[in-house]
Amino acid sequence: NLSYSDDVSEFEPFEGSMTSVLCFVPTPSVLLEALNINMCQDVNKPKHYTTDYYMQNLVVRRGQEFVMQVTFNRPLAPEDDFHIEFAIGSDPSPNKGSLIMVTFGNRGSGSWSGRILQSQGTAVMFGITPNAAAIVGKFQVYVAISTGMGMQRTKRDPTTDLYLLFNAWCPDDHVFLPNEAERQEYVLNDEGVIYQGSSTSVTERPWTYGQFERGILDACIFILDTSQTPIYDRGNVVKLVRVGSAMMNSQDDNGVMVGNWSNDYSLGKPPTSWTGSTKILLQYANTGVPVCFAQCWVYAGVFNTFLRCLGIPARVITNYNSAHDNTGNLKTDLLFNADGTPDRRNTRDSIWNYHCWNEVMTKRPDLPPGLEGWQVVDSTPQETSDGYFRCGPAPVIAIKEGHLCYPFDCGFVFAEVNSDVVFLKRDKYGDLTPFRVDKTYIGEKILTKAVGSQEQNNITNTYKFPEGSAENEATMARAEAYGCERDHSEMPEDDLSVTVIVEPVTHLSATFTFTLCTCRAQNVTAHLDCDIVFYTGVVASHFKDITFDVTVLPYQSELHENLVVLKSEDSVMNVLLNGEPLLNQEMGVKVEFTNHFSFPLRGVSLSLEGAGLIGPKSKYYREIPPQATITWQETFIPRLPGLRRITALMDCQEVRQVTGTT
Amino acid sequence: NLSYSDDVSEFEPFEGSMTSVLCFVPTPSVLLEALNINMCQDVNKPKHYTTDYYMQNLVVRRGQEFVMQVTFNRPLAPEDDFHIEFAIGSDPSPNKGSLIMVTFGNRGSGSWSGRILQSQGTAVMFGITPNAAAIVGKFQVYVAISTGMGMQRTKRDPTTDLYLLFNAWCPDDHVFLPNEAERQEYVLNDEGVIYQGSSTSVTERPWTYGQFERGILDACIFILDTSQTPIYDRGNVVKLVRVGSAMMNSQDDNGVMVGNWSNDYSLGKPPTSWTGSTKILLQYANTGVPVCFAQCWVYAGVFNTFLRCLGIPARVITNYNSAHDNTGNLKTDLLFNADGTPDRRNTRDSIWNYHCWNEVMTKRPDLPPGLEGWQVVDSTPQETSDGYFRCGPAPVIAIKEGHLCYPFDCGFVFAEVNSDVVFLKRDKYGDLTPFRVDKTYIGEKILTKAVGSQEQNNITNTYKFPEGSAENEATMARAEAYGCERDHSEMPEDDLSVTVIVEPVTHLSATFTFTLCTCRAQNVTAHLDCDIVFYTGVVASHFKDITFDVTVLPYQSELHENLVVLKSEDSVMNVLLNGEPLLNQEMGVKVEFTNHFSFPLRGVSLSLEGAGLIGPKSKYYREIPPQATITWQETFIPRLPGLRRITALMDCQEVRQVTGTT
Repeated sequence: NLSYSDDVSEFEPFEGSMTSVLCFVPTPSVLLEALNINMCQDVNKPKHYTTDYYMQNLVVRRGQEFVMQVTFNRPLAPEDDFHIEFAIGSDPSPNKGSLIMVTFGNRGSGSWSGRILQSQGTAVMFGITPNAAAIVGKFQVYVAISTGMGMQRTKRDPTTDLYLLFNAWCPDDHVFLPNEAERQEYVLNDEGVIYQGSSTSVTERPWTYGQFERGILDACIFILDTSQTPIYDRGNVVKLVRVGSAMMNSQDDNGVMVGNWSNDYSLGKPPTSWTGSTKILLQYANTGVPVCFAQCWVYAGVFNTFLRCLGIPARVITNYNSAHDNTGNLKTDLLFNADGTPDRRNTRDSIWNYHCWNEVMTKRPDLPPGLEGWQVVDSTPQETSDGYFRCGPAPVIAIKEGHLCYPFDCGFVFAEVNSDVVFLKRDKYGDLTPFRVDKTYIGEKILTKAVGSQEQNNITNTYKFPEGSAENEATMARAEAYGCERDHSEMPEDDLSVTVIVEPVTHLSATFTFTLCTCRAQNVTAHLDCDIVFYTGVVASHFKDITFDVTVLPYQSELHENLVVLKSEDSVMNVLLNGEPLLNQEMGVKVEFTNHFSFPLRGVSLSLEGAGLIGPKSKYYREIPPQATITWQETFIPRLPGLRRITALMDCQEVRQVTGTT
Repeated sequence: NLSYSDDVSEFEPFEGSMTSVLCFVPTPSVLLEALNINMCQDVNKPKHYTTDYYMQNLVVRRGQEFVMQVTFNRPLAPEDDFHIEFAIGSDPSPNKGSLIMVTFGNRGSGSWSGRILQSQGTAVMFGITPNAAAIVGKFQVYVAISTGMGMQRTKRDPTTDLYLLFNAWCPDDHVFLPNEAERQEYVLNDEGVIYQGSSTSVTERPWTYGQFERGILDACIFILDTSQTPIYDRGNVVKLVRVGSAMMNSQDDNGVMVGNWSNDYSLGKPPTSWTGSTKILLQYANTGVPVCFAQCWVYAGVFNTFLRCLGIPARVITNYNSAHDNTGNLKTDLLFNADGTPDRRNTRDSIWNYHCWNEVMTKRPDLPPGLEGWQVVDSTPQETSDGYFRCGPAPVIAIKEGHLCYPFDCGFVFAEVNSDVVFLKRDKYGDLTPFRVDKTYIGEKILTKAVGSQEQNNITNTYKFPEGSAENEATMARAEAYGCERDHSEMPEDDLSVTVIVEPVTHLSATFTFTLCTCRAQNVTAHLDCDIVFYTGVVASHFKDITFDVTVLPYQSELHENLVVLKSEDSVMNVLLNGEPLLNQEMGVKVEFTNHFSFPLRGVSLSLEGAGLIGPKSKYYREIPPQATITWQETFIPRLPGLRRITALMDCQEVRQVTGTT
């Protein structure tokens, strides 16, 4: 428990003074006393861009002045001796930055500056500017007045507690972001889009970050408390985001979310069923128990909420064909048996269809100049970094330029976007020979949502120089010097190349194009292994295994194969509003879903969420028969103004994450 | 359990082959069979400097050829198809470097090279050179012969297991050390000296590293297994020493030793009572339970054994006036109350009389060039480094030059040798004002034992440029740029300065020299706080508190004060040998100790140890009355040749660590 109140005394005598020597002290006619403290929420919040926080207490950003009004028992006199105290943590101390005494006058000033703005009778308006490197979190506020024999403090009052955040608007703050549109997006936007699917077929998933919703800021501070991050480290962005990346997953620190890639989610909610972060964060803060279940986009979504809520500019990134190197080298080895079938048992590295992580914008005072800017942080538990499941912050520019010697985890992220994929064949003795190397497949496309719109922003070029460019060669050489093992096998030029195009429109079919670079026809035995795979590359089920012989004519041949009839008509949900969308006036929302499949859907969960509008709500249907339509109505009172969104989501075992938005 | 034997089959059929198709296989007249494997200990050990290991199995160093003889059932024929396998870990795999297949012929060679040195009838002598970056640890050895249908392996035989170590003699190994005298000292010397005391009064403590003693190498591998270091990381010096620094202490990973600085050691052995590392390592390996108790020199001593045992060049360092910064800035704050008395409750940083750590010699492939060489590693649990109690490897040159941006923990070590000591006075409001800054006290002297002798080697200049030099200024500026907060307070020139010289000869007395830079005499109130402190700066007991008034005359005054009669005659132990010191011949040792104190010594433990001579032995005496002499005799058989040492130690509550050596 981090309360200071147990440990602070309302009266603290001066050293060496005793009550019996009262006669020596020149007492003023009436002892000064502070009767009331007003934190002036309405004046401060708009100036600090914190109006949206669903919170009675004052929330401000560091490095920027806020005002507070103290009412005394009499007008201030020049000889009055007092200060305002801000205390955080269980053991506040001035030289650790966790007990700040702000003085108003000639007396030596501490790290926060204070001034008297206005005195009207007994009411005095103070202006206080927390240091731009101040500790972030919840401070207790006291007025302390010297009575001659000691300091008399005001009583502890939770309603005057002050929340202090990082400040992207303040040039002295390490998280400063000069562009207003970017600040609006990366700090203040509470809705977003996370990209999924594959590089050739990008799908969008709406996500409600909800960093301003009731209880979220307290939940984020609860996470820091659970992590036992020392109070004096809580103003340090680099340390804080590293702690955050460790705390989002439950591994080794009992953090927020339990990962599950098994396809059996019966002990919790499926990762596909979440519409946003708030439900997860509140459940964790209320119970202290990790929430079941998450996969990478859930980790990235919730982490983004945590970061934006504390005021750190952050965004969610999707890397298509993300290598997951778990052997310490920077090659992704795919092993095949002598007959060409994959050797899954011995292939430990894996490639994920896509992988989501976060970027935060910050200076790096711990590193040489030039490494500030966007930094990769990843909370999905892939590999331990120096003992814990966490990753980053790794400067994006260091990854682009191959400077892998700087902390944290640049090598791991570099491998995720740059690994060579080495196809190795095992001969009968067990020896492995590379037969193909793909140097371009990994990290094919890196996306994030654009600023101020719903468009894709392709940021691949912030991670990589163009393939084949001199700069890219320099990066690769540098990376290799830091122990990145690349493949330099001399590969025979293949006479035969094969491209496979799979079209998943209404049924799954594949077109094989064989290109032969010789003039003689060849007989080819093709082995086609059809699996349903998760986005992590793990095989869910093996549904077709085709071996066929083709005679390939010189130069080009095509072969078309129908694999399986798989998809029904597109599944959509309609989300309809009724009523006038006015602030603080009740209105309604209707969700409609029709099962267009030829089979019943069982164990269907419907969810509904809209930041600033309607909290996460859900409904469960035991079965929706074919062609049946279900309708779900809810009413809500919009809390926040502006263009806002409601997302509805249908999730069941047979059909995952059908969404609709309005 | 890391045994491969459960999981390897003696016969592994080729893929696609079946026993029923035997007729297709052209079988030679007699199938080749390996009857016996001889690891040739006597030939290999001297060449690999591993003779001293008390171990039946072969111990060799990587990157250097060793020989082994295989006896077959018939002479080899050119068409014979076989290889020798080396397997380590629970799941050996060729592409992770944990299953090595060494071939002898034209077939593609793996990472270890092999050649046939000699064939005499059925006995074939093979030469095998493990890769200079190979995994270090205990390998199983198999001969695998192709029978046409599959590979026939020899039976698992623990006596042929091979221990592979780092190799300071091999230029391709990252731990290469070019100088033979240094290799003899830092890899092969199993005795040493650890410096203690204070910078003005250095004391020597003999320490038996004992890295070659029975069971120690297995204990070191047990520690790696307990840490769950992945097998493929066990050839990487940087990762291995970082793991080692975390595993020496019991915090957060159930490691080797429990720290105790309380002065109550009733639940274990006092840190002062150990004579060497072997007893601790064997007890840990046999029980898996952390050993009680250690302080910094014990951690450094045992860690040194671990490192040298695995073949990593290592030495123990003592830093006098070692700052222990636990707030993340690089200032050591000492707080005083308004009346000049120390404010111990709020002083969190501390200064240790001395602190011991280790250095290892290695390249740093993870960092830019120029950072190779000696690296600080520290296993004493002071502060967590990125979540665990561990520290380093931090390049010594990076500390000297202020390049604090490179991993690991350069900032923390920099503070230990460079912190400014800031004396802060708290005024009645609680505000802190610096009144004195000492920029030279911390890291005053850094010592290690010299190569090939018992002399001190002062290596302060490897950590620091001379105070006041331009290079030192550049280092400080660089460190500051990386967030090292230095003190820049403008301090008033003091009129009065005081030096205190304490002479601890037979009684404790102090001489105060007051120097006054004005022409008028002044009356001064001096406050002297006399404490018995541990080497960590923690007060054990407060034995005198003197306040006196002096009239200080201009320029210089002296004051002499007798504090307390403390020390009796020097306590010594005599260690006497009898018998001819010959290898493998019994001889005797006699330890004599006389209690010259005027009080009885109670609960006395006597210990005796000599690497290669006599294992750690101890004896307990309930009470030794004043002037009584005790005599203890033991016999032993010297196992190793050369100049060797026996250390005896007496330890009890009243008098700590009286030692004698012969």
